[in-house]
Amino acid sequence: MSQSNEEKLPLSRRRFLSSGIMAAAATGLSAHGAPPIVGAANRDETVSRNAIEPFYDEHQAGILTPAQQNSYFAAFDVFAEKREDVVQMLKAWTAAAARMSRGQAVEPFENDVTVYTPDSGETLGLPPARLTITFGFGPGLFVKDGQDRYGLAARRPAALIDLPRFAGDELVEAHTGGDLSVQACADNPQVAFHAVRQLGRLAYGTAKIRWVQSGFLPNDSGKQTPRNLMGFKDGTNNPLANDPKLTNEFVWVGDEGPDWMRGGSYMVARRVRMALERWDRMTTTFQEQTVGRHKDSGAPLGKKHEFDKADYAATDDGGNPTIPENSHIRLGAAVNNEGAQILRRPYSYNEGANVAAQRWPPSRNEMEFDAGLFFVCYQRDPRTGFVKIFEQMSKSDMMHQFLTHTGSGLFACPGGVREGEFIGQRLFEKTKGV
Amino acid sequence: MSQSNEEKLPLSRRRFLSSGIMAAAATGLSAHGAPPIVGAANRDETVSRNAIEPFYDEHQAGILTPAQQNSYFAAFDVFAEKREDVVQMLKAWTAAAARMSRGQAVEPFENDVTVYTPDSGETLGLPPARLTITFGFGPGLFVKDGQDRYGLAARRPAALIDLPRFAGDELVEAHTGGDLSVQACADNPQVAFHAVRQLGRLAYGTAKIRWVQSGFLPNDSGKQTPRNLMGFKDGTNNPLANDPKLTNEFVWVGDEGPDWMRGGSYMVARRVRMALERWDRMTTTFQEQTVGRHKDSGAPLGKKHEFDKADYAATDDGGNPTIPENSHIRLGAAVNNEGAQILRRPYSYNEGANVAAQRWPPSRNEMEFDAGLFFVCYQRDPRTGFVKIFEQMSKSDMMHQFLTHTGSGLFACPGGVREGEFIGQRLFEKTKGV
Repeated sequence: MSQSNEEKLPLSRRRFLSSGIMAAAATGLSAHGAPPIVGAANRDETVSRNAIEPFYDEHQAGILTPAQQNSYFAAFDVFAEKREDVVQMLKAWTAAAARMSRGQAVEPFENDVTVYTPDSGETLGLPPARLTITFGFGPGLFVKDGQDRYGLAARRPAALIDLPRFAGDELVEAHTGGDLSVQACADNPQVAFHAVRQLGRLAYGTAKIRWVQSGFLPNDSGKQTPRNLMGFKDGTNNPLANDPKLTNEFVWVGDEGPDWMRGGSYMVARRVRMALERWDRMTTTFQEQTVGRHKDSGAPLGKKHEFDKADYAATDDGGNPTIPENSHIRLGAAVNNEGAQILRRPYSYNEGANVAAQRWPPSRNEMEFDAGLFFVCYQRDPRTGFVKIFEQMSKSDMMHQFLTHTGSGLFACPGGVREGEFIGQRLFEKTKGV
Repeated sequence: MSQSNEEKLPLSRRRFLSSGIMAAAATGLSAHGAPPIVGAANRDETVSRNAIEPFYDEHQAGILTPAQQNSYFAAFDVFAEKREDVVQMLKAWTAAAARMSRGQAVEPFENDVTVYTPDSGETLGLPPARLTITFGFGPGLFVKDGQDRYGLAARRPAALIDLPRFAGDELVEAHTGGDLSVQACADNPQVAFHAVRQLGRLAYGTAKIRWVQSGFLPNDSGKQTPRNLMGFKDGTNNPLANDPKLTNEFVWVGDEGPDWMRGGSYMVARRVRMALERWDRMTTTFQEQTVGRHKDSGAPLGKKHEFDKADYAATDDGGNPTIPENSHIRLGAAVNNEGAQILRRPYSYNEGANVAAQRWPPSRNEMEFDAGLFFVCYQRDPRTGFVKIFEQMSKSDMMHQFLTHTGSGLFACPGGVREGEFIGQRLFEKTKGV
């Protein structure tokens, strides 16, 4: 835990790093509190690949960070018997995350003190690619099967609820829950996976992977609103990230939370399989009515341009709403949810094809793509965020004919880590001796 | 089938295409026989994203094409009763592939003549990203369950063998075989998947997806030899692509094959799961002995630089070979296989985690990454290519302690398509009236 930002890059990585990368690193490391966030609207690819997102900061990285191109998420089951073992692992994870965020191997290759290879090595020679690693604590860390394993039960925040069952949920154990979460995001799939893989190894003997989910955005997504696999722009109306007043109101936990959660946020993750084959056999008009936007431009129905404001009062000649009552954007809009807002940070996923049964007519039972959305959102409190918004949507959203939620998780992501601390330290300190 | 290279881009895409892309398109389209292949060693990312790989050419694209960043492969089962239905689908596939390779929607959005949306739409606004679509014919197209369904049985090439069972094979039906293959590669995961998805829709009623496999390379891989998930550089010694004399000798089918296969090649695809957790618990030294190369530099053991020639005669002080007898590179080298060579075009894959049993001690039965290599290679004849090389490797390669082949396919990829033809046309013409 004595990682210093002034620490020199180890030789084995330095050999690979160009002077340009070194310069970016130096800038990143000296610019605490003013992270070199690359704007989503004008991201230069070469710059972004070489950029370092600071690990030590007021908030965890990977929440407000403009979405990187790739994501790799893992939920862990903790099986350690002693709290101290959990603490040791979190210390090791913190040190490793700080190093990897700077583009370093998880352990220097020169320090051949372990009996194992110091790092799996597949990122040797690759730039940091804006890697962020975001940690969360699931309900099972506090209480599991009725057991207060680590003396943390009394400190479980009220907001860390057990998510209710939503209409249409078809959750499978293999993609649901977890005591700890790790999401690595980077502008390189190899860098994102590498980070989780090293943390998985550091967890050996303490925790094991329960489920994982990779995700991607289209390349060039930094220059325009990315389209998800339904072919529509996804994220046009996502105003929270750039407005500190809104993020303080809707994203970051404030004084209402325990101190270890202040400046943190609650992450809801949902694995949403899309019935792509069926969606593809609908007309464009039907799809647009379902979404509430035009496919090509992304404009709200009845408008011309993507960022035009949706007019939910507008009606057509027959008196019907221009944006249908059960359309996706109407049901999700803050104005129709008593102001509720969440910070969405979704990725597409693509995991082959397998036999899937279709709940809705025409019922089918055949080989289909296992692809869709790894929906991730952050909020100050899931009860007034995702749960409030999604309860209505899960019942009424026309789009849900084409969606199946197969995985789910809720994790309390603590506030940011200061140098010398480990992730979630204040949670464990406060309960010393309990 | 009246797609013309002079055809104007449809309006709905043209709106999205920058003038830079248009210029690239114009260059690409007018440069037949001199494809704007972007060299692997100095690929500029923005240029490569905008580049168009010509679809109509002497050979199919996606074989000699410098590896794009992403791949999406699908094997189809054909269930049409009549040969003419297969021909109609191949015509539609050819037209669609030509359009998509130019960055166009599979059908123009203006031509709202279908009852379905003309294109799933997730590539609207994205550049062509060097998309290539490579088609292959599996044994089942010629004979299936003893049936000569389409009058093609007599034309099955001798080289289109049933692959033998190799030592250690643990093939599963869900990732093996297929009557037709399609591999889309592009410098954008969204563009690669989109292409296969549209072809899948065009196959409706004629063929259905049997299995799929996505793949990726690390970003920046155009600038250096990419590392696979074992952390070692993969592809250092892959000399075929840039030498026409060698490609004519080892990759392209010549006069020995039927005319529809001349200028074509045989594709072997293998889904190779890596026991990453176990590999990561080995020492770097052991890993290097297994591979036969240094992890950091990629140099052959006993050498300094990646591209130094391996010295298989060299011994250490104890008289043991510097590059071990059972190391991966020794067993795979042409010099140790009577000159046999194949063109490797592998991608990494990453498909979550699931419970896996480990065959080798220490035997385990636990959650592991389902990740590894989607090994693809091309050759003039698999009997003197992959089969010859891999029969020995599958028995002796030390690396195979960490690899499990779970999927497999062999496909005859016909010669390239000329404008006005459809893929494999000469195969079907020759058998007219049979």
